[in-house]
Amino acid sequence: MEFPKENFSEWYQEVLASAEIVDNRYPVKGMLVWRPFGFAIRKHVTGLLRELLDETGHQEVLFPTLIPETSLDKEAEHIKGFGGEVYWVTYGGKSPLDVKLALRPTSETAMYPMFSLWIRSHADLPLKIYQIVSVFRYETKHTRPLIRVREVSTFKEAHCALRTEEEAEEEMKIIDGVYKAFWTELGIPFLRVQRPSWDKFAGADKTIAFDTIMPNGRTLQIATSHRLSQKFSKAFNVVYEDENGEQKYAYLTSHGVSERAIAALIGVHGDNRGLVLPPEFAPVQIVIVPIIFKGKEDIVMKKAKEIYDKLVVNWRVKLDDSDSNPGDKFYYWELRGVPIRIEIGPRDIQNKVLTISRRDNLEKVQIPEDRLLDELNKLAEEIHENIKKRAMQEFKRKIVVAKSLDEIKKSDNKPVVIKAPLCEDWEECGKKVEDQISKEFRGIDLDDKPEGEKCVVCGKPAKYYGVWSNAY
Amino acid sequence: MEFPKENFSEWYQEVLASAEIVDNRYPVKGMLVWRPFGFAIRKHVTGLLRELLDETGHQEVLFPTLIPETSLDKEAEHIKGFGGEVYWVTYGGKSPLDVKLALRPTSETAMYPMFSLWIRSHADLPLKIYQIVSVFRYETKHTRPLIRVREVSTFKEAHCALRTEEEAEEEMKIIDGVYKAFWTELGIPFLRVQRPSWDKFAGADKTIAFDTIMPNGRTLQIATSHRLSQKFSKAFNVVYEDENGEQKYAYLTSHGVSERAIAALIGVHGDNRGLVLPPEFAPVQIVIVPIIFKGKEDIVMKKAKEIYDKLVVNWRVKLDDSDSNPGDKFYYWELRGVPIRIEIGPRDIQNKVLTISRRDNLEKVQIPEDRLLDELNKLAEEIHENIKKRAMQEFKRKIVVAKSLDEIKKSDNKPVVIKAPLCEDWEECGKKVEDQISKEFRGIDLDDKPEGEKCVVCGKPAKYYGVWSNAY
Repeated sequence: MEFPKENFSEWYQEVLASAEIVDNRYPVKGMLVWRPFGFAIRKHVTGLLRELLDETGHQEVLFPTLIPETSLDKEAEHIKGFGGEVYWVTYGGKSPLDVKLALRPTSETAMYPMFSLWIRSHADLPLKIYQIVSVFRYETKHTRPLIRVREVSTFKEAHCALRTEEEAEEEMKIIDGVYKAFWTELGIPFLRVQRPSWDKFAGADKTIAFDTIMPNGRTLQIATSHRLSQKFSKAFNVVYEDENGEQKYAYLTSHGVSERAIAALIGVHGDNRGLVLPPEFAPVQIVIVPIIFKGKEDIVMKKAKEIYDKLVVNWRVKLDDSDSNPGDKFYYWELRGVPIRIEIGPRDIQNKVLTISRRDNLEKVQIPEDRLLDELNKLAEEIHENIKKRAMQEFKRKIVVAKSLDEIKKSDNKPVVIKAPLCEDWEECGKKVEDQISKEFRGIDLDDKPEGEKCVVCGKPAKYYGVWSNAY
Repeated sequence: MEFPKENFSEWYQEVLASAEIVDNRYPVKGMLVWRPFGFAIRKHVTGLLRELLDETGHQEVLFPTLIPETSLDKEAEHIKGFGGEVYWVTYGGKSPLDVKLALRPTSETAMYPMFSLWIRSHADLPLKIYQIVSVFRYETKHTRPLIRVREVSTFKEAHCALRTEEEAEEEMKIIDGVYKAFWTELGIPFLRVQRPSWDKFAGADKTIAFDTIMPNGRTLQIATSHRLSQKFSKAFNVVYEDENGEQKYAYLTSHGVSERAIAALIGVHGDNRGLVLPPEFAPVQIVIVPIIFKGKEDIVMKKAKEIYDKLVVNWRVKLDDSDSNPGDKFYYWELRGVPIRIEIGPRDIQNKVLTISRRDNLEKVQIPEDRLLDELNKLAEEIHENIKKRAMQEFKRKIVVAKSLDEIKKSDNKPVVIKAPLCEDWEECGKKVEDQISKEFRGIDLDDKPEGEKCVVCGKPAKYYGVWSNAY
């Protein structure tokens, strides 16, 4: 119980610091340093995201960090939504700039002037690109590492241009598929929620968000997908000539995932000893700890190295041959979420077995040395599945389905997410519920529909499940 | 001769645009967009750099983009050198910031406050980290894509803290090794040059630079390595306790490579048809072009797909089954530097051979289909070696070794780099040469020493070769 998870906020800060994920002592509030261990997790997570986007025909690019005010200003709703939290560059050296430059809060307005140059004919569409970059928001709310920051240092933003509204809707589905695969692999359960109109991305006509539930019952928005229709293409003149020679405005979509993916990975799976990482995302997948007894040093170290050499071909493996005692080594690597620990002592060597500890359930097993490689593959798979299963059970425990306003109110002060049936006027009725409770109306669940139920507000036939939560 | 390389400046701009490497029409001067094809080259190049740094014990991290003025100001020489070209963030939304924030021009002053927290004892050293990020310089000189820009969007900066001056010198050698391996693999020949004191990094006590020679004879600085001694560690209080319990200032080094690596890769190897890329860095390594004849479409396409399926396992291969005619396809992929083209026509299929074209020397060979995989491996190796060899020959042709001031003056107006012997007071004598010619004194060649020669200025025994060039 080095890191009691009951008090999640403290646990989270403590584990981020102790496991050397990020350092938030950097002398600008809300801006963090990724340390080597944290960076390695980030690399594996972004690696999967890149793979999934590449496979579905999205191409990686890199746009400038700065957006001229003249571009940021072009779409009225967008600048209204973002203007208040933009960092402005006003000087180059000692010279004031002619045009102020914004640190990108998101890159729609950086990309569309180029879309307007690149797109000429229907043959240039669809255009599907993405980048993984820093974006900046002058947050006035309380900041939290990886969750609410002023420099989002890991922002995957995909931006697509399509010919028709149908193709845009199709792209929304393709990205849904990418995100589902991504969160499933990370073992992060989610609700796929359509946001109410007042909570959409500034300039979008539809926003779908993925929300997970953190251990304290608060939802964390971990991905978004925006159908932008033609608002931006009209503002930026993103036009193509269709098959009949007619000039048409393109339909645009944008899709974001940030380092909150790593906040969720840490928060959802961790336990009282620190991080618990699925093997695929663990910087160190296997740690070998030699258990040294006096007079047996050589034989143990020799075997440990032999095992290391065998594993290093296919695994991210670490042989901890430091001077610390085994207990300290166990503590150190458990905190860092290493999924598999192999202990090697003189007796194990004599019996031709290895002692293997799982980080996820802390169980130990002995396996014959000659079956090590097969067992590890099986074990890594089992660990991944168990982590996913556990997270899903916990997720379900944190969702209360209420049938009436009274039931909603009863759960309002609990650390849970509330779902309840709403009619087709879900925005209006959802808002009426919000006005009577402390939780926030997040929108409607897109993957679960009520059958034969009634709206908890107006009593009309229910069409959707509304979602209310305390949100990060 | 679509892209005549004699006029290198035009060739360079033309090829960057036509091969869709970067787009410089972004509405901020000196800031560029990496397009998908260019981004893919960048990915392979940075991939190699990461590999070499990881292998030598450097760990990847990520620091914030913004540096508070109070940090940037701490080391006097540094701020004197960089202050004039820093972009300043002065507003968050509509609020003026209490402390101005600089867009990092380089990250020494971002990192050292954290070094000061991380480093306590000699056991914490050496500390060796790197990041690949954007840095920003408000350039007043003429900008050029990837060469002189206002947002350097690919800056690999390594930063190390060591216990002693000897260990710092040792780290300089380790990075020299990394850089030599990197440039050798890219096929970019270089001079390793120690810069004169007035041309050192602001705050360094020694700067080593790698200079390559572009087709127009101008040198391009493609890497730097700075020994910073204890100046910064004193300014930022980077202190460790040594084995005897004494508090000591650490010795610091920093080491940079930018997207100029890609400018060099393009400029050095390219030819009149466009890019020529070593297979390791080519986004598309092999293109298959079916040569369709009426009535034979199916048999040709079937064979092309069969070959594609065989190659896609180990190669970045593209089957160009578009409607363009073969000539246009050849042009398109040659411009993009694809190292190997496989043509498949009905006669080839009948004869069980494949026609293979090399991009580097434009030669064609026919090989039996059943030996394809072996031949491709051999061919890729040969292409890489040939590209390297050709670049080295060209590099040597562009260096004139002069024995006297007269000989130097004779070559001054030629598109070459001049080397000539200098005595141990090389800074002074090198400057005296510079004052009489149009080329710039770059420093001394660290990999070539004169024997039994005399300084071209003062006639004293020569110890070094000075280097003069027109520099980018």
